[in-house]
Amino acid sequence: MIRIEDLYKITNNKGNIFHFLKFNQIKNKSDGEIYFSEVLYNKIKAWKLHNKATLNVTVPIGEVKFVFFDQKNNKFIEKNIGENNYKKIIIPPKIWYGFQGLSSNKSLIASYSDHIFDDNEVNRKEVSELNYDWRIK
Amino acid sequence: MIRIEDLYKITNNKGNIFHFLKFNQIKNKSDGEIYFSEVLYNKIKAWKLHNKATLNVTVPIGEVKFVFFDQKNNKFIEKNIGENNYKKIIIPPKIWYGFQGLSSNKSLIASYSDHIFDDNEVNRKEVSELNYDWRIK
Repeated sequence: MIRIEDLYKITNNKGNIFHFLKFNQIKNKSDGEIYFSEVLYNKIKAWKLHNKATLNVTVPIGEVKFVFFDQKNNKFIEKNIGENNYKKIIIPPKIWYGFQGLSSNKSLIASYSDHIFDDNEVNRKEVSELNYDWRIK
Repeated sequence: MIRIEDLYKITNNKGNIFHFLKFNQIKNKSDGEIYFSEVLYNKIKAWKLHNKATLNVTVPIGEVKFVFFDQKNNKFIEKNIGENNYKKIIIPPKIWYGFQGLSSNKSLIASYSDHIFDDNEVNRKEVSELNYDWRIK
């Protein structure tokens, strides 16, 4: 299932520094890539499942709710991470996931995938195809 | 000297996607790391020189001015990059560099270094030690 790891942050009055990844901790690193995804307040990007890629994701700007569907136990797992709760989520293949922006300003997700993007290894569902209540409490 | 490369950006009404790095383009990837540096408006982080590490930097949030000191030709090179001018700068070792936030909101720099951080391979100077005019025009 997913794993959460603490990351470190160095505060600085000119702007903070957020550590993300050391590559000596990564397998399959020869073929990976890094990209950033913005997500606006209340917007939902869901659902996606990678058949091969493992993702490492973090949120250095804003705050994002990640939702994972645990098919084995038929339940949802929610994790909020962001600049004030700075952690990394490791998402193995074969897990449905989606996310939503929780900050009034846009949030930024940084993702490291251990496979170059290939649409053929991605499954997608519409937001409504999994019965999760995305309303922000 | 430094190199500038175009990066691609996919616009999306829920939040844009910014590509950064494909690891099959990187040498020495076994020992690298990724981190993020915020820089607030008008704040300057300078000067630093890596003796070993090559950096790949980009700016997915805000806008940042990078300044490089070309010791051979005794001149400064300036490059502004940011979310609306989305490019990557490759900074080889032995080049003095500094940067400044140009956005009224904070800017975010993403950096990939091909060496794990080691303070012994970094030289530093105070901002005033190189005669660059940082005033924002």
